[in-house]
Amino acid sequence: MDDAFGQMLRDRADAEIVERDDGFVSVSKLAYFAPVRRWFAVERRALRFVHGRVLDVGVGAGRVALELQARGRDVVGIDVSPGAVEVARQRGVLDVRMLAFEEVDASLGRFDTLVLFGNNFGLFGSPAKARRLLRRLRPLAKRIVAGSVDPYGTSDPAHLAYHARNRARRRMAGQLRLRVRYRDLVDPWFEYLIVSPGEMLEIIDGTGWCARRFVQDDGSYYVAVLD
Amino acid sequence: MDDAFGQMLRDRADAEIVERDDGFVSVSKLAYFAPVRRWFAVERRALRFVHGRVLDVGVGAGRVALELQARGRDVVGIDVSPGAVEVARQRGVLDVRMLAFEEVDASLGRFDTLVLFGNNFGLFGSPAKARRLLRRLRPLAKRIVAGSVDPYGTSDPAHLAYHARNRARRRMAGQLRLRVRYRDLVDPWFEYLIVSPGEMLEIIDGTGWCARRFVQDDGSYYVAVLD
Repeated sequence: MDDAFGQMLRDRADAEIVERDDGFVSVSKLAYFAPVRRWFAVERRALRFVHGRVLDVGVGAGRVALELQARGRDVVGIDVSPGAVEVARQRGVLDVRMLAFEEVDASLGRFDTLVLFGNNFGLFGSPAKARRLLRRLRPLAKRIVAGSVDPYGTSDPAHLAYHARNRARRRMAGQLRLRVRYRDLVDPWFEYLIVSPGEMLEIIDGTGWCARRFVQDDGSYYVAVLD
Repeated sequence: MDDAFGQMLRDRADAEIVERDDGFVSVSKLAYFAPVRRWFAVERRALRFVHGRVLDVGVGAGRVALELQARGRDVVGIDVSPGAVEVARQRGVLDVRMLAFEEVDASLGRFDTLVLFGNNFGLFGSPAKARRLLRRLRPLAKRIVAGSVDPYGTSDPAHLAYHARNRARRRMAGQLRLRVRYRDLVDPWFEYLIVSPGEMLEIIDGTGWCARRFVQDDGSYYVAVLD
């Protein structure tokens, strides 16, 4: 199977190409190697909620794990991409495992904080999967600090049409089906969930988690602190 | 039908996404608005071969036509993209028509020079179509000044595999099948031919055209002057 995402990180490509299942392709500057001063301000501000032993979910090139290590945290990073695992290790992340979010269990030990920066609340995939995972994670972690994008912060007709299409299929507006493309490599499609703060509250309701704080500014990207 | 290319120009997108029919996607910084000082040096050097009444084939956003107008040339620009025609006009190209290269005939009048910069020798499409078009253009133009890329200037395995695949199908190594993607817009596939200088000589042989000059440097992009 291709590892487009991992090869893109190995090559430190200039840009990331993400294709949505309606054919929309987006290109963005590669953010996976950004030093902390280049992060979204809300992620920098949310760092103070990250304590103790940390699981970095979707470690990528180690952007967040390296910063947390430098701040003295004990970090385990996980990623499903072999290339990401390799790059994160090479760059100095001390404990990286090739593991999917949904495979996290007690064998990894217990964590004070689960970090899902870089919009990785998305890895919860769908409302149903999110609720299932949140319940399972409850005994394994004290806190989740996760970034998401409010899908309603756009007036782009292409995105609004995608929201409508999703709703017509009884999906959440921001339930995205995406895949990464890099050169001739194509990753499998994956479900990626973006939600407004209000929608996040509905999702976590009854899972044993409650929102302690939304770290927000005037952008649509925000970080939720769940306890 | 979508006009991905044209919408990309209208929006002055940051990057152009081109997909090849083996699934290879490339991203490049948008070059269609570059002022002359940012052009490839071989195109700047080749400007002195462009005389008199000029047909700019694939006018795009008018990069070349505007420079030639500023130098006092009488320029007609053609493009198949409605968005390109619109943008080139808005930016000041005085005579722009929506027309395909293969539709050029005596109704446009005769030209001193046909300009195909920005790698637009590629618009000849295939060796057979190139020969047919070159013969037809013979009475309509005195000179063709056309940029191409030497396909053999790469050691990239993905490109070499594409060459081999082409050869196995009795196509030239650099006979590309491409389409432009922009956001949710997808242009139709088109044939785009890149050739080495030697291959270009073989193609033009017997068409009434002869190569007067190859303007080259140490890069794989070069400009041919055909009389």
